Amino acid sequence: MKKLINDPNAAVDEMIEGYAAAYASFVKVLPQNKRAVVRSAPGTPGKVGIMIGGGSGHEPAFMGLIGRGFADGVPVGNVFASPPPAPILEITRAVDQGAGVLYMYGNYAGDCMNFDMAAELAAMEDIRVETVLITDDVASAPAGQVDRRRGIAGGFLVFKAAGAAADKGCDLDEVVRLARKTNDSLRTMGVALSPCFVPQTGQPSFVLSDDEMEIGLGIHGEPGVERGKLSTANEVADSLLDRILQDLPLGSEDRVAVMVNGLGSTAYMELFLVYRRVAKRLAELGVHIHRSFVGEYMTSLEMGGCSVSVLKLDDELAELIDAPADTPMYAQHEARQKAGD
Amino acid sequence: MKKLINDPNAAVDEMIEGYAAAYASFVKVLPQNKRAVVRSAPGTPGKVGIMIGGGSGHEPAFMGLIGRGFADGVPVGNVFASPPPAPILEITRAVDQGAGVLYMYGNYAGDCMNFDMAAELAAMEDIRVETVLITDDVASAPAGQVDRRRGIAGGFLVFKAAGAAADKGCDLDEVVRLARKTNDSLRTMGVALSPCFVPQTGQPSFVLSDDEMEIGLGIHGEPGVERGKLSTANEVADSLLDRILQDLPLGSEDRVAVMVNGLGSTAYMELFLVYRRVAKRLAELGVHIHRSFVGEYMTSLEMGGCSVSVLKLDDELAELIDAPADTPMYAQHEARQKAGD
Repeated sequence: MKKLINDPNAAVDEMIEGYAAAYASFVKVLPQNKRAVVRSAPGTPGKVGIMIGGGSGHEPAFMGLIGRGFADGVPVGNVFASPPPAPILEITRAVDQGAGVLYMYGNYAGDCMNFDMAAELAAMEDIRVETVLITDDVASAPAGQVDRRRGIAGGFLVFKAAGAAADKGCDLDEVVRLARKTNDSLRTMGVALSPCFVPQTGQPSFVLSDDEMEIGLGIHGEPGVERGKLSTANEVADSLLDRILQDLPLGSEDRVAVMVNGLGSTAYMELFLVYRRVAKRLAELGVHIHRSFVGEYMTSLEMGGCSVSVLKLDDELAELIDAPADTPMYAQHEARQKAGD
Repeated sequence: MKKLINDPNAAVDEMIEGYAAAYASFVKVLPQNKRAVVRSAPGTPGKVGIMIGGGSGHEPAFMGLIGRGFADGVPVGNVFASPPPAPILEITRAVDQGAGVLYMYGNYAGDCMNFDMAAELAAMEDIRVETVLITDDVASAPAGQVDRRRGIAGGFLVFKAAGAAADKGCDLDEVVRLARKTNDSLRTMGVALSPCFVPQTGQPSFVLSDDEMEIGLGIHGEPGVERGKLSTANEVADSLLDRILQDLPLGSEDRVAVMVNGLGSTAYMELFLVYRRVAKRLAELGVHIHRSFVGEYMTSLEMGGCSVSVLKLDDELAELIDAPADTPMYAQHEARQKAGD
């Protein structure tokens, strides 16, 4: 696998250096920890601190989402590996403005362990920390075991909602409530067509035949629910959406946000074909799509494939999803980008 | 090659349908031509109409850049093929607000022929059309033959500058002057690591060995200037930047915008490594990077590789690059995203 890298062991550190240099007006690296990236602007007193994170290799998540309306800080792990407690704790200290800090990350054992440890250490310094786990991946556990589900691309929407809530001055309890409600109203299902290659090993994350795809494969190569022959964009979109709708029934009174996320090497053309089918299916059900997100929001290096996320909205969630945001890798102006309203 | 498509011959039309559905608040397709995409908002009387375009397969360019501060309309060609005159002319009629229309596109024979034909037809309807060709690719012809150079990813910055100028009320002559000045101050150089596959043929756009790269390869697979062994991110960044600096000498009084553009399947991690080296080299020369763009701005489906663009700025160009923009695939708030100012 060809990669534009230098020393594979230095790739993450060098990526952070490049990112922080490119977007210095948004972000800075804390001098005490080169894996601790925070907003360069001074914090707003009394604002809840928003921290998101996890392993690297998912760019533009998570580091790309530091800025107004999104995150205040991101601890950066190695590729597909949780950050250790040290950068998490350093950022927690840096972003706490007296109103406490919210941690949001995908439900993976390593992340849970490290973020929990940092939260305990922060508590000893009288910094209040709350945690909302992202569990949007319907493929990873049955409906009765939602707390075993992992977090994938839909997490972007939870971060967006919580970031907007913190930005408008909600207190920590309220931000937690809104983040949980967003996560609970959200489902994602993905399909993989081709693997990614972790820089340090150069090995493929999984192996599929030339005519195979895997439905429900996780963003680190975790096994999916079904391996099958590659089919058309319409058929793939149908099988992703069917599985989401089993879990999140929708009807003609419902309003949603829809995300079609590319995993890294899938062309935008294909993402728009998948979106087209999802939109058509939802229209047939009478579901109103309030806002759409089509592009690369959470990748797995150069993995091939995509995921579909559906977030059921009410007025308060719609307001948060519509709120302005301004980060290096995602910006949104006020109330201009809604589809069909 | 695995692709999430339906009928390959319908992929472009279906992509446009999906795109227009996802971003209906920004764009609409003209009822008289399914390849004619324009802003959904009513035009501003007296504003110069901005049209950009070319073949498809370069998403998020060109269609993704319709909106405030960028384009008013995009005629969409087949994959890597110019749009015919019909959608160009229909859009010209639709976006003319009495102030004339500017066409901007890469310097390719097919595009020149079709856009020129549409411009002639528009002139017969008393619509004034001017054209600025994008010629940023230093690999495609020597410095003495700039008008033979093709247009690649740096075109984004020309569109951005011209779109901002039109947005603030400049007349057509002034928008043309600023677009030409931006193009003249801009250089891009790219490297390809792996091919893309056009949906209708399924064939690779070119063939490289497992350890080869091609410096200067064009965005449709046009031959580059040098084929060599794949080297490190630093070495690749150096060879791209060296070639740019031969053509656009820079020193300690200079201020630039820098873009590192991914061609489709190259991970963001790699783009940031390339950016890191470019920024370091420019810092050594005392060049000030005013604003940075790292991501996918103009792709070639799932091609592997990237390009580096450098735009030399003065006050008037910097103001245009900093101006707000609001399109489905690129948004920029006011004066917040500059690097290091």
